[in-house]
Amino acid sequence: MKTLGQLLQTGDWKGEKHVPVIHAPEKVKAGEVFEIKVSVGDAIGHPNTLEHYIAWFKVFFHADGGKFPVEIANFDFKAHGEDGNFTEPAGVARIKLDKSGTIHAVSYCNIHGLWENSQEIVVE
Amino acid sequence: MKTLGQLLQTGDWKGEKHVPVIHAPEKVKAGEVFEIKVSVGDAIGHPNTLEHYIAWFKVFFHADGGKFPVEIANFDFKAHGEDGNFTEPAGVARIKLDKSGTIHAVSYCNIHGLWENSQEIVVE
Amino acid sequence: MKTLGQLLQTGDWKGEKHVPVIHAPEKVKAGEVFEIKVSVGDAIGHPNTLEHYIAWFKVFFHADGGKFPVEIANFDFKAHGEDGNFTEPAGVARIKLDKSGTIHAVSYCNIHGLWENSQEIVVE
Amino acid sequence: MKTLGQLLQTGDWKGEKHVPVIHAPEKVKAGEVFEIKVSVGDAIGHPNTLEHYIAWFKVFFHADGGKFPVEIANFDFKAHGEDGNFTEPAGVARIKLDKSGTIHAVSYCNIHGLWENSQEIVVE
Ligand SMILES: [Fe+3]
Ligand SMILES: [Fe+3]
Ligand SMILES: [Fe+3]
Ligand SMILES: [Fe+3]
Repeated sequence: MKTLGQLLQTGDWKGEKHVPVIHAPEKVKAGEVFEIKVSVGDAIGHPNTLEHYIAWFKVFFHADGGKFPVEIANFDFKAHGEDGNFTEPAGVARIKLDKSGTIHAVSYCNIHGLWENSQEIVVE
Repeated sequence: MKTLGQLLQTGDWKGEKHVPVIHAPEKVKAGEVFEIKVSVGDAIGHPNTLEHYIAWFKVFFHADGGKFPVEIANFDFKAHGEDGNFTEPAGVARIKLDKSGTIHAVSYCNIHGLWENSQEIVVE
Repeated sequence: MKTLGQLLQTGDWKGEKHVPVIHAPEKVKAGEVFEIKVSVGDAIGHPNTLEHYIAWFKVFFHADGGKFPVEIANFDFKAHGEDGNFTEPAGVARIKLDKSGTIHAVSYCNIHGLWENSQEIVVE
Repeated sequence: MKTLGQLLQTGDWKGEKHVPVIHAPEKVKAGEVFEIKVSVGDAIGHPNTLEHYIAWFKVFFHADGGKFPVEIANFDFKAHGEDGNFTEPAGVARIKLDKSGTIHAVSYCNIHGLWENSQEIVVE
């Protein structure tokens, strides 16, 4: 039996359409607001229908040497064709950090489960 | 006793810092992806501390003549100082519509309750 | 143009299947944990399919004479047939209050929009 | 650098207060609704203050031999002292399954990060 941690899949987003892509600066200033964008489908689009869709992303930050990740943002994509409306799987958050560390993003597809990606960020 | 609908406060975001500001084009093409941004604090910043913060936005779309609003996106802002991390109250969604109507945004402050705003959008 | 507050529909849950039913004691002791259950479909079941489902409830508490409602709980019902799994639209929260007031529940159907109900509760 | 999957901590809930406890039957009938309860603090209570709290649980089901977990429910515990209101970290979901498998629960503490637990369930 796998743990849930072992069920968090990953891969190269250029070939695996479920992997969240993290768009973040490599370097930021401590305490200054900056934007990160997380998206799915930058290279290969993912379906967006009532039967099959990306439901949400969660974004965490784990400081270098820190014991625990801190949740930054949760994005829920809610419209998948209802009354002709669609929400694409992309979210932007505005954040402030004060230590260098790693941004982790998780995406959930209602059919294909949990996928994760990460990116290091230097805070000066 | 008020209904919850009656507890959704509103106002001018230039003077009332809890009112969500909707940044959306006035006119879009049917079925084309576009961005909307919702934020709080464009004119007057809102506190962002463990004790007092904007917790989330929800965004709905109500087509002209439609009976029901459809939820577009939910944004949760999760870090309010934990380990030096902060999430600002702003979110961007990428959406597609096929009818003209109204975008509704709701924000929730853990101390000052529910606030709403709306903006019409023409879909051609 | 209606406000979102005006789009929060209500009705008698015995005849309107979208209205959340609040199961809560009439009277509780200040600072003592008790349970509230919110459900949809007690009298008439609501569909639970990939195309049509109850997506979530939010629960708020508004103290008598208080200015703002405080969010108590958010329940998201996520499985609507994926791999044979279904989540029914019902949630239980364990809460403590210290003033009398009103519990407000909102439910969202992906097709039929937002519905609310409320129940007064005496805190001694 | 750890993956997020590697940051999902676990342990014995009798000694580690962050581990979600899953209360579920060992055996259920296919397609019959049953309840699962997830809680934190059954043996050792967790703080519930504005500065330190359990923010949410997610619950997934992974069928034996299935490739992907399916999300069942998300519970957000929202009140941590605002206006004297508190939401305890416990949630109940009503679900239907049609295959045997494993229930996975994740909890998030705003200070101590992500914790998981799981329980097998036989579906007849
Ligand atoms: Fe998929
Ligand atoms: Fe406020
Ligand atoms: Fe409905
Ligand atoms: Fe903790």
